[in-house]
Amino acid sequence: MSSVLLLSCPDQQGVVAATAEAIAAHGANIIHAEQYVRGEVGSDGSVFFQRMVFDLVRDGTSATSFLESFKPVAQRFDMTVELRDMARPTPTAIMCSKQPHCLYDLLTRWRSGELPMDLRVVISNHDDHRDIAEHMSVPFVHLPVSKETKPEQEAAVLATLAEHDVELVVMARYMQILSDDFIAHYPMKIINIHHSFLPAFIGANPYRQAHERGVKLIGATAHYATADLDEGPIIAQDTAHVSHREDVAQLTARGRDVETVVLARAVRAHLDHRVAVHGHQTIVYS
Amino acid sequence: MSSVLLLSCPDQQGVVAATAEAIAAHGANIIHAEQYVRGEVGSDGSVFFQRMVFDLVRDGTSATSFLESFKPVAQRFDMTVELRDMARPTPTAIMCSKQPHCLYDLLTRWRSGELPMDLRVVISNHDDHRDIAEHMSVPFVHLPVSKETKPEQEAAVLATLAEHDVELVVMARYMQILSDDFIAHYPMKIINIHHSFLPAFIGANPYRQAHERGVKLIGATAHYATADLDEGPIIAQDTAHVSHREDVAQLTARGRDVETVVLARAVRAHLDHRVAVHGHQTIVYS
Amino acid sequence: MSSVLLLSCPDQQGVVAATAEAIAAHGANIIHAEQYVRGEVGSDGSVFFQRMVFDLVRDGTSATSFLESFKPVAQRFDMTVELRDMARPTPTAIMCSKQPHCLYDLLTRWRSGELPMDLRVVISNHDDHRDIAEHMSVPFVHLPVSKETKPEQEAAVLATLAEHDVELVVMARYMQILSDDFIAHYPMKIINIHHSFLPAFIGANPYRQAHERGVKLIGATAHYATADLDEGPIIAQDTAHVSHREDVAQLTARGRDVETVVLARAVRAHLDHRVAVHGHQTIVYS
Amino acid sequence: MSSVLLLSCPDQQGVVAATAEAIAAHGANIIHAEQYVRGEVGSDGSVFFQRMVFDLVRDGTSATSFLESFKPVAQRFDMTVELRDMARPTPTAIMCSKQPHCLYDLLTRWRSGELPMDLRVVISNHDDHRDIAEHMSVPFVHLPVSKETKPEQEAAVLATLAEHDVELVVMARYMQILSDDFIAHYPMKIINIHHSFLPAFIGANPYRQAHERGVKLIGATAHYATADLDEGPIIAQDTAHVSHREDVAQLTARGRDVETVVLARAVRAHLDHRVAVHGHQTIVYS
Repeated sequence: MSSVLLLSCPDQQGVVAATAEAIAAHGANIIHAEQYVRGEVGSDGSVFFQRMVFDLVRDGTSATSFLESFKPVAQRFDMTVELRDMARPTPTAIMCSKQPHCLYDLLTRWRSGELPMDLRVVISNHDDHRDIAEHMSVPFVHLPVSKETKPEQEAAVLATLAEHDVELVVMARYMQILSDDFIAHYPMKIINIHHSFLPAFIGANPYRQAHERGVKLIGATAHYATADLDEGPIIAQDTAHVSHREDVAQLTARGRDVETVVLARAVRAHLDHRVAVHGHQTIVYS
Repeated sequence: MSSVLLLSCPDQQGVVAATAEAIAAHGANIIHAEQYVRGEVGSDGSVFFQRMVFDLVRDGTSATSFLESFKPVAQRFDMTVELRDMARPTPTAIMCSKQPHCLYDLLTRWRSGELPMDLRVVISNHDDHRDIAEHMSVPFVHLPVSKETKPEQEAAVLATLAEHDVELVVMARYMQILSDDFIAHYPMKIINIHHSFLPAFIGANPYRQAHERGVKLIGATAHYATADLDEGPIIAQDTAHVSHREDVAQLTARGRDVETVVLARAVRAHLDHRVAVHGHQTIVYS
Repeated sequence: MSSVLLLSCPDQQGVVAATAEAIAAHGANIIHAEQYVRGEVGSDGSVFFQRMVFDLVRDGTSATSFLESFKPVAQRFDMTVELRDMARPTPTAIMCSKQPHCLYDLLTRWRSGELPMDLRVVISNHDDHRDIAEHMSVPFVHLPVSKETKPEQEAAVLATLAEHDVELVVMARYMQILSDDFIAHYPMKIINIHHSFLPAFIGANPYRQAHERGVKLIGATAHYATADLDEGPIIAQDTAHVSHREDVAQLTARGRDVETVVLARAVRAHLDHRVAVHGHQTIVYS
Repeated sequence: MSSVLLLSCPDQQGVVAATAEAIAAHGANIIHAEQYVRGEVGSDGSVFFQRMVFDLVRDGTSATSFLESFKPVAQRFDMTVELRDMARPTPTAIMCSKQPHCLYDLLTRWRSGELPMDLRVVISNHDDHRDIAEHMSVPFVHLPVSKETKPEQEAAVLATLAEHDVELVVMARYMQILSDDFIAHYPMKIINIHHSFLPAFIGANPYRQAHERGVKLIGATAHYATADLDEGPIIAQDTAHVSHREDVAQLTARGRDVETVVLARAVRAHLDHRVAVHGHQTIVYS
């Protein structure tokens, strides 16, 4: 049973050694360790980030006992510490609208065991994809929304998420702008896919904007949803070459492949506990 | 001796046949033909673009005689027509500043015969690269510039370009903003490399902007310089993956490779007479 | 209603004009034209390839009447001619085994209208994916195979394909080697996805081979199945960067994404009538 | 002054902690640490690799004193240890032939300070690039070679490398096959660029082979030279999309850009002390 320790603290001498030592003292086998210093090493204000994957191999050790024994180190270096259990897949909800590509892709990956995701529910403002969700034995909740009913609908979505104890919400082209209030319930726990290479083409109809600008690449950006629309910390991005030949419909079709791949990459990074957030930036461990 | 015919006209039935027929009637061998309709085929306002490469193989034919014989077709379809001679490399100037990467790359490609460019002169506001230019027997003109001397300097640059009968100006990270007046002398004949994936990170210090936004890709854009800064028709773009690990200096280094490749790709497309401009968009023939 | 004319003939002067003229004379509107000469233009043995997309807009014209009127041109230039109807999606079968990724992807694209494919049947040597096929109302035929039963099983597959009037067979990781006899029934009508960048890692377990060789890229190749295993004409290929960190299982997982995208790209090119075969090479029109 | 510690040993519990502790005890600041276990963690035969970058910040510490104090840890875990000094650029020779692209690119990167390389000499079997080398004040040694003179020429090359105390030899399209004896003088210290995606198209004329096979991608591979030609440990690889349109000459031109970028990437990894070799595979730290 592997555990993941995610920590950050002011950059200081000796922190790597102290952490490694604490893990070794607990009889654990370090499988993977990665660290990163934001800012210049040794300078004021620089921040140390680390992700350690380790196996608790000694009898009688547990995540709880480890965290207890790690406390002195955490306090000494003023650390923020999170411990995650790799054997426990994250309870997840997918929100979608009419477009199927991201939803189908995530369902396929989940069903084939590729994503460590405990998929609890699919929520949509349209009823289109009930069949595939239910076919895969995933509860499907249809919650239509209009300008007038938005507050009620969001309350119903929140209730559904709570009912299923969801810890990650994946917006697989949900196409609705979530209220700040909604987002505040799941800080850095909502992943959205924006259909452009942010910060280019913020806002509506990015493929139309891209076509009008005559760009030679289209892109997609997966990011955590924050109150500032399209300003959330970016987890993954990619682009694909396009030519003058492609009209808006063709750019949109080409873009679907990029969106699908980028969203899956971001979701996987999150589920692997490889993403840390610092301000409006992410550290994505390898 | 291959000729390139670049034409555009309102989209009409029969235009492909009429053009092919006119070329065949002149005893020419069509080597390559590519066409594109902007807008819906057959609808009002749609525009037809074509690039034909052909060899005049019959005795006594010439570019001049061909153009003469092509006139009736051009008039019938209300065509804009340009005829280029593949055997004549385009007289070109490179403008650079202190950064060497794009300059060196273009010089290497030119010297190894890879680019059909008649390199006449290198112009710079710094004297740094005189040695390499002169080493390759290319005249180097040092024209320093300051806020106060900008009008005089631009006049001197224009005089140098005129003296060398330059038809293409490549801004290989020249780093100075050209005046509208300057640009008006070389419409769609100045290629600039912008160190971001436009329209993201318009303006100064795009790598710093990219770092602050926490993007996972950096990019570069080669475009024709127009009065609207960074709004010129895009010829080529590309991106490269980056991670949180890269600071501004590293992003800048990584970006240099992308800039170099993208600028070379755009310059080559222009020199091959493969670029047509429509509004603020390009058609880049394959 | 658009038609696609695919032709090839010995390269000769006047062929472009003659074809365009014949189409124009039939009152058709040429939407797209692309040509290619294999070998040096004008030299012996060089071959001319062309793909024309056109609309028959005049009353009373049809594919049949067009082919009739095109005959003199075809004979004059010794052309091989095929006419395809863009409005008629190609009757297609998907063959799969246990792995779901390519099957699910093709089903999703087909169901969302992205692929002009008339999906008639899914055939598999395992019963695993009956549910998803039937859920989408596609007949699913389970034909298990062993060394001993291979001839009978292939006969049953052929009978199923015949019964459904299939014109394209997509092997979505079918994992069985088809007999030469089987392949001879569908020349250049069976698309296979090989899980390596051919010709590297021909044969079994390419990801294991790749891992042992320590490559920094993995790839996938979509090709027409021919009697020479893994030697069929290549339609599409792509690669993805990998590092020393990835073990065989991880390479395999990474590879699935490449396989999925490459197979879809090849199938789409075939369905769009954009692929011509010459020897063991393909011309893939843009 | 940063130091790089490269180590490998049988995978054992406690090794990460022991190493970090030893560095901290010496008053050093760990800037970057990366580790990798080849094989399954905790299983027999698995090997632990680590790269640590650290600053010796305490007065009186030095690389020598560090290595001395590190000995007990190294012995306890049966480590292979190398300590490199980031402030000391590696003495390097470039060997080239007639093709300029890789040579010019490396010279440009070196001259602009991008590569931490102490370029001592350029050696070539042709005199073509004497001018650019000497222009940049790098000694150029012309050592022509023929079948008959190969042993003498290799002896002369070895003498030149020895005279300049070279520790890295970069074969920038040198085009000659080095003898096993020559290679034995510089084990894992000769980087070669092969103009294909190895193991595809081993041997001569890979672009011709690629054209004949009709591939849709071309590639390049940078690897350490070993006695088994084209079987050396791979450091970097990349590919570029090509189409049926490109003939052998065009594939070759397209390939040059890939070769240039891939070689530079491999050379930089080596110069940054980011490459470890295990069998015929590499670990390339990030």
